[in-house]
Amino acid sequence: MNTALRSPVVALLTDFGSRDGDVGVMKGVIAGIAPRALLIDITHEVAAQRVASAAWILATAYRHFPAGTVFVCVVDPGVGSNRGAFALHAGNWFFVGPDNGLFSYVLNEQPVHGAVALENPAYRLPHVSTTFHGRDIFAPAGAHLAESAGGVFAQLGPALEPATLVTLPVPGAQRSGARIAASILHIDAFGNLITSIPLAMVPELEHAARVEATLPATGARVEQHRRFFADGEADGQPFIYPDSSGYLGIAVRNGSAASTLCANYGAPITFDIFAP
Amino acid sequence: MNTALRSPVVALLTDFGSRDGDVGVMKGVIAGIAPRALLIDITHEVAAQRVASAAWILATAYRHFPAGTVFVCVVDPGVGSNRGAFALHAGNWFFVGPDNGLFSYVLNEQPVHGAVALENPAYRLPHVSTTFHGRDIFAPAGAHLAESAGGVFAQLGPALEPATLVTLPVPGAQRSGARIAASILHIDAFGNLITSIPLAMVPELEHAARVEATLPATGARVEQHRRFFADGEADGQPFIYPDSSGYLGIAVRNGSAASTLCANYGAPITFDIFAP
Amino acid sequence: MNTALRSPVVALLTDFGSRDGDVGVMKGVIAGIAPRALLIDITHEVAAQRVASAAWILATAYRHFPAGTVFVCVVDPGVGSNRGAFALHAGNWFFVGPDNGLFSYVLNEQPVHGAVALENPAYRLPHVSTTFHGRDIFAPAGAHLAESAGGVFAQLGPALEPATLVTLPVPGAQRSGARIAASILHIDAFGNLITSIPLAMVPELEHAARVEATLPATGARVEQHRRFFADGEADGQPFIYPDSSGYLGIAVRNGSAASTLCANYGAPITFDIFAP
Repeated sequence: MNTALRSPVVALLTDFGSRDGDVGVMKGVIAGIAPRALLIDITHEVAAQRVASAAWILATAYRHFPAGTVFVCVVDPGVGSNRGAFALHAGNWFFVGPDNGLFSYVLNEQPVHGAVALENPAYRLPHVSTTFHGRDIFAPAGAHLAESAGGVFAQLGPALEPATLVTLPVPGAQRSGARIAASILHIDAFGNLITSIPLAMVPELEHAARVEATLPATGARVEQHRRFFADGEADGQPFIYPDSSGYLGIAVRNGSAASTLCANYGAPITFDIFAP
Repeated sequence: MNTALRSPVVALLTDFGSRDGDVGVMKGVIAGIAPRALLIDITHEVAAQRVASAAWILATAYRHFPAGTVFVCVVDPGVGSNRGAFALHAGNWFFVGPDNGLFSYVLNEQPVHGAVALENPAYRLPHVSTTFHGRDIFAPAGAHLAESAGGVFAQLGPALEPATLVTLPVPGAQRSGARIAASILHIDAFGNLITSIPLAMVPELEHAARVEATLPATGARVEQHRRFFADGEADGQPFIYPDSSGYLGIAVRNGSAASTLCANYGAPITFDIFAP
Repeated sequence: MNTALRSPVVALLTDFGSRDGDVGVMKGVIAGIAPRALLIDITHEVAAQRVASAAWILATAYRHFPAGTVFVCVVDPGVGSNRGAFALHAGNWFFVGPDNGLFSYVLNEQPVHGAVALENPAYRLPHVSTTFHGRDIFAPAGAHLAESAGGVFAQLGPALEPATLVTLPVPGAQRSGARIAASILHIDAFGNLITSIPLAMVPELEHAARVEATLPATGARVEQHRRFFADGEADGQPFIYPDSSGYLGIAVRNGSAASTLCANYGAPITFDIFAP
């Protein structure tokens, strides 16, 4: 690949929805600064101001982007307040957004090369509003990073101590013998439930005699286990499967597990794995 | 046009919706392989796992894209099962997706230059999940095709006999004198009903004395005929019009014909054309 | 910036939604004509055929795009009728769309360098349908403008007298002493109400003793005033704030002001500002 031809990638993740022109405006600002950038939407349909959900969607996505990609992420209930705004260089990527926990998984998973507060007015729009930092602060910072291939990172503002950055508690999974206590991390657009159990925690799953998931909130049980969706019965029974995010999921073939099981974000879930 | 500057086009069509980051992840994978690609969304809002609907949307779209465009189409209820995954070179374009009928119209309408199974691991991601072939198989294959301007086609995997590819029954229209028996092919975002009657089957329509459409399921009748939407009465009465897809449609001005007529996908519809 | 590398920007604004492939088809047409173009969506979720809403969204967006951007805007209830189709060169930008008031704010705010009717068949698709001018007329015209950096403007068709172009009444705000009579211009995706009061009309707002907004239709009152969202009480009380569009807005923290206040597009609203 001739790197002279390589377009810098700017990936966007917000809760702005697609009804207003806000995302388009951010892209207009970016195009003015980084005209060769390839702009990629991760999603703009994060449930309004649900930072934890945005953090998880970003966690499943960022590794699949080319080195040097700049992620501009704006789920920002604190816009205009004194919450921080920063850029992060971690792993092979750059991240730009509010300091509210959006980058919790990234900070957990990647080596951090640096973090800077977005305080240099030279890398903001001339007028900064109190309600749309996506346009006025984050888009320009991300675009300048992309256009310079990270070169302006240190000039964006004063360095921050990574340990001081806000991180959310990342829902985990505790295994104790054959029992795993976990929770619902995410509900995807098909209504599949993604649990906080990494596939690597359950290597014996495929050869288990039996697996049983229980949602204590409702008493619902799931006892089927499938390798892929089409393998599930077309009978509306939910089943456990290995989600492409790298976590255990629960699905209903051609249906919604969330509706079938009345399950919500964050709900506790228990797994029991019975050896053959 | 200086072809050295021409960006390869990769067009995407899925039922993934826009709430999760799945489409963004596919684009991240593509950008890593084909960094100059121009990525165009056809839609990601196909009704979940409705292959026939996706096939029709693709049929109305592909001819309008530049020669060499690679269409990556993933409406794939059989993901992870033994359904095939293939690339198709037909007409002036390349198509990548599951072998489930998604490309039925293309196979009907275009000369087929070749088809190959996507089995060469060199053109997949290193780890292939059981539930997200859009990311692991289809996006990489499409990106390599785009980046090589089709050059790697034969290396993607073993050649397939086109006659063995899955095709759906394409809803047709039977004309017998002044009567045409057809069905509802598609309901668009405005609620317009698109019928399976090609405009070329009714050349005399504009000069007919009277046209009458009947939906046997409900007994509903439509007797108005208009050349364009603004020509319709603002009275909520449905009317027949020539849809831009090249098929006869039924619309309500500033309203939804689907709601007004309680019409569903696949519903039979009868037309009678009376000569002047 | 090496302008040889600068991609022309084509920004799209329609009411086509994202369920059908219509926007994708328009982009396919553009990519065939202007293969280096950077395609940016402003929104495709304008309420169906609500021209005034589209005009306002465009008004809040266009200034943030690079000089030379071509805006292709299609909210077009009159498609196929004898309503005009035109291109406009105003300020630093080009605009393409139906002559129905979509560009009212642009015409009000920017110097007009020229307007031409889109009548030259060399810059349309060979076959022009009666129902999809976005594909057949507006996308090709916009793409040729982008590819030529505006060079073909005068060849698109005969010049139009700007004064003859359709403009909508732009909702204004009348100030009389401490009282301002205005209306609801827009309801954004968060349910925030954007009023027709420019921030420049209320410079003393921040230091006012008290501000009171009244919606005569329901008698609802808003008496809180905040500088940004996180500054609002988490008690569901609506508050007045300076919206990033440059107009006064009314919001509910983590909620919808439109629902809380039962407010609609166009509803009258009165402000009283009391000096300290």
